[in-house]
Amino acid sequence: MSKQPTPKDPQFEARVRDSFAKQTFMATLGARLARVGPGEVTIDLPVREALSQQHGSVHAGAVASVLDSAAGYAALSLMPEGAAVLSVEFKLNLLEPAVGVRIEARAHVVRSGRTLTACTAEAWAIDAAGHERLVAILQGTMMCLQGGSRTG
Amino acid sequence: MSKQPTPKDPQFEARVRDSFAKQTFMATLGARLARVGPGEVTIDLPVREALSQQHGSVHAGAVASVLDSAAGYAALSLMPEGAAVLSVEFKLNLLEPAVGVRIEARAHVVRSGRTLTACTAEAWAIDAAGHERLVAILQGTMMCLQGGSRTG
Amino acid sequence: MSKQPTPKDPQFEARVRDSFAKQTFMATLGARLARVGPGEVTIDLPVREALSQQHGSVHAGAVASVLDSAAGYAALSLMPEGAAVLSVEFKLNLLEPAVGVRIEARAHVVRSGRTLTACTAEAWAIDAAGHERLVAILQGTMMCLQGGSRTG
Amino acid sequence: MSKQPTPKDPQFEARVRDSFAKQTFMATLGARLARVGPGEVTIDLPVREALSQQHGSVHAGAVASVLDSAAGYAALSLMPEGAAVLSVEFKLNLLEPAVGVRIEARAHVVRSGRTLTACTAEAWAIDAAGHERLVAILQGTMMCLQGGSRTG
Repeated sequence: MSKQPTPKDPQFEARVRDSFAKQTFMATLGARLARVGPGEVTIDLPVREALSQQHGSVHAGAVASVLDSAAGYAALSLMPEGAAVLSVEFKLNLLEPAVGVRIEARAHVVRSGRTLTACTAEAWAIDAAGHERLVAILQGTMMCLQGGSRTG
Repeated sequence: MSKQPTPKDPQFEARVRDSFAKQTFMATLGARLARVGPGEVTIDLPVREALSQQHGSVHAGAVASVLDSAAGYAALSLMPEGAAVLSVEFKLNLLEPAVGVRIEARAHVVRSGRTLTACTAEAWAIDAAGHERLVAILQGTMMCLQGGSRTG
Repeated sequence: MSKQPTPKDPQFEARVRDSFAKQTFMATLGARLARVGPGEVTIDLPVREALSQQHGSVHAGAVASVLDSAAGYAALSLMPEGAAVLSVEFKLNLLEPAVGVRIEARAHVVRSGRTLTACTAEAWAIDAAGHERLVAILQGTMMCLQGGSRTG
Repeated sequence: MSKQPTPKDPQFEARVRDSFAKQTFMATLGARLARVGPGEVTIDLPVREALSQQHGSVHAGAVASVLDSAAGYAALSLMPEGAAVLSVEFKLNLLEPAVGVRIEARAHVVRSGRTLTACTAEAWAIDAAGHERLVAILQGTMMCLQGGSRTG
């Protein structure tokens, strides 16, 4: 957590961006891949009516979706060339209503193993004045797939 | 779990259906409220390209979204008149790729308290031949809001 | 979940009992391995003062400990000969105070993969009259280790 | 997370230490309350044979126990006078075998609400040379009980 991890694949950013572009669901949500670093990924989700739950804030599932993708790509950024990533599990705590102009999902790798990677992620709601509030936190496990076949 | 709980509000189904209709995000996903019983809710999600992750199956976030809504409404079905529901937290294990023609999210209440309700939910992927496979399980906590104000 | 899984190792029960006997912590808790079936394990924990939290009920950590061991051994019962098991992660919801004369931790396998196994488990508190109450539920992931080396 | 929270009860440390002293299970484990700050608690667990799982490292349940207590007391430190704390749920990811001379469980409050408090906690394994490794992370919810009665 404290030190910057070294990516095994120098092309990690291109690999993450290519995979994100194939996640049609991210386009459906209107989510954008903002930042890709080694073991760290940020996804930006503009808030709009189409993402609402019954009280007008962003649905917990939409927040979970960008946190999960951010965590998955943070994990993928440290995996070797040719690897793919799958979510094994994640847990989300919802702290405040997700309201504002956009949600930023910021994920980082806590431990990167050969098969499994543990990640945490935070969702921040940003209002029109640029003020940020932490609205959700995620803790999850990602799995490395080699050669396209699931190893789990 | 074993015995059928008694709803406090005889109008529970109408209340759940009204609230679901206000979740714009469910319409964005194309999800439909299939069944509402006391402490039990099923949501149906037709599979389509717009919900995909990078390998073509339904994104874990879309699966999480319908499981979370199903769990929240299972909880709401047992809450008193005038109450609203919020997700406190949930945990999702992804067991198999979510592929098929539709996903069924089936939630039920495990324990219903005055403030907090614990739920579990299962996501089943159903193929064109009607065969079902369990693809994800959720365990989570919902909170009862009285008079529109958050009590937590 | 619905059908009885077939264990890969006919000696699964002996293997589980041998491993349990090596968990010194289970002896420290006073826990006993009650039942070992294919994909299903029950651990019995007599309630005593040494396991209490500040209000007199059994500490959530003691409940978590027997649920985690039960889940791990349910997973191990379906793993091939020579395999070992490690907990990857688990999530616990505490539903009621764990009071009574004993706690029964009942775990079963939801999906058994080559590397990862998903399990759920329930903790039931049983009073002097034999009445049972569900006090906690667990959902978690176990990992198969082949040849003694961690694959994750 | 970034700024130091202000405790509602100036006697928070004494209140936490009194409650910890009543957790008989912490004495059974051999755990000690090391540090109590506003919204931050550290528990120290000397490693010994009595806490082992089948491969000789500290059992995940023992690690969970000190993380849960640390998280609960971090939450209690910010609660008003007369309040008590209960664990609602927690999720644990196990990153590395918990081996060494002692385990330090470090918890802090992420969001403190009137009824619910969200916490995260880390377990660090410390070897004889004083080197630290992160072995587990927890994310959970604690509940405030007023006047001794459960509000959930």
